[in-house]
Amino acid sequence: MRLLARVSYDGTRYRGYQVQPNQLTVQAVIEAALTRIHKGEQIKITASGRTDAGVHALGQAFHFDSTLRIPEGNWVRAINSQLPDDIVITDVHQVAGDFHARFDVIEKWYEYRMYNTTLIDPFKRHYSHYVKMPLDVALMNQACQYLVGTHDFTAFCASKSNVKDSKVRTIFHATCEYQGDEVVFTISGSGFLYNMVRIIVGSLIDVGQGRKPPEVIQEALRNFDRNTLGKTAPAKGLYLKHVVYDKNEKKF
Amino acid sequence: MRLLARVSYDGTRYRGYQVQPNQLTVQAVIEAALTRIHKGEQIKITASGRTDAGVHALGQAFHFDSTLRIPEGNWVRAINSQLPDDIVITDVHQVAGDFHARFDVIEKWYEYRMYNTTLIDPFKRHYSHYVKMPLDVALMNQACQYLVGTHDFTAFCASKSNVKDSKVRTIFHATCEYQGDEVVFTISGSGFLYNMVRIIVGSLIDVGQGRKPPEVIQEALRNFDRNTLGKTAPAKGLYLKHVVYDKNEKKF
Repeated sequence: MRLLARVSYDGTRYRGYQVQPNQLTVQAVIEAALTRIHKGEQIKITASGRTDAGVHALGQAFHFDSTLRIPEGNWVRAINSQLPDDIVITDVHQVAGDFHARFDVIEKWYEYRMYNTTLIDPFKRHYSHYVKMPLDVALMNQACQYLVGTHDFTAFCASKSNVKDSKVRTIFHATCEYQGDEVVFTISGSGFLYNMVRIIVGSLIDVGQGRKPPEVIQEALRNFDRNTLGKTAPAKGLYLKHVVYDKNEKKF
Repeated sequence: MRLLARVSYDGTRYRGYQVQPNQLTVQAVIEAALTRIHKGEQIKITASGRTDAGVHALGQAFHFDSTLRIPEGNWVRAINSQLPDDIVITDVHQVAGDFHARFDVIEKWYEYRMYNTTLIDPFKRHYSHYVKMPLDVALMNQACQYLVGTHDFTAFCASKSNVKDSKVRTIFHATCEYQGDEVVFTISGSGFLYNMVRIIVGSLIDVGQGRKPPEVIQEALRNFDRNTLGKTAPAKGLYLKHVVYDKNEKKF
């Protein structure tokens, strides 16, 4: 039986999502929990994609296979009982045997939280990126509109990513808005390159602070040059918000 | 020159406010920062009172003496530059030479955050107390009204507190309200006994979940018996919000 799970996590303590030798990762902790539930039978999980160290998730998704006869409605509690309280399973349901949490992704939503109050907020230090200078959200939204559509995002990609793969992605939605004293950037797309959201955010901050014009996004989409864009924004402001698998799902 | 400082801190990493040998405490970290600013001259600070391990502050207050000629407006930045990012000085100003941050307190405000959504929230694990069963906020507010006034709070005090001191305190304000998906209890008073707010909150949760009637507060004020009341609520939901020194200060 194949199951699709949704999971929220505070990424602060973890060396990212993906299993690495001798490192605390979200995947390793979830697999250990599932292996305990399966009385020691090694269970592997397959996520929609990895998240980097310090990146959070409000709705990461993964699939796994199980022969246990646990009623569908009991899985959430069963797994959560084996997890630390910074990783919380929010939903588990059965899917077709050939469902794949990575290959079947239709759309992914991310959000990035930043704030620019006079003083830093000690309660946001792992959860939002502090920028000292004021942000012009209207200018940032102008830059956002250039992201939407199907483009070659080579310039929006950390240099250590694989050079051979296609860098063409489709962005469906990209906006910035105030939520309380934070500026929240929300983006959805067919997929994202390594560090792509954080490079976009670093560039939007440059735009919002007047160091670059909104058209810098267009320029980078034409010249494929990483150096045209801003710094990679820190991991702590980034949240994987939702992964869409069902074409008929209502707009998130 | 005597200075009064206001400070916010995330108490998660600290073994409380007050200096203890070989323990990381908020006071020790601030004193070390001030001592560095004073080129090694030992600086001692005196707070409005201590907070326990895991308790947070939005507006703790302390005084200290300095012979440095730093303009009043530069102190905030000077101290913050020497502090980790979970402790933030928000204000520093000069006070009379006989001002005392503990003895001159007129009123202290605390808040306690709790929530009872279906699942725990990984982002609230150090910042709000999760209670699984629903809370009846109207009943909790009914219980709150019995707190207001001048009473002997012997029953609302951890047993390890000093038996000889007076347990009479005056509560000016006590209410519960929804803020988003959290229930926030706000209380102000002339002063508080050891663990008093957390014992009140544990009792309010019993009232909100129907295990005790609102009148349990009255009963405990009459029988002075700690066992009449609920469990001490965990530290992580508690915030020292504001300390009032000036009678003319507008209602916080």
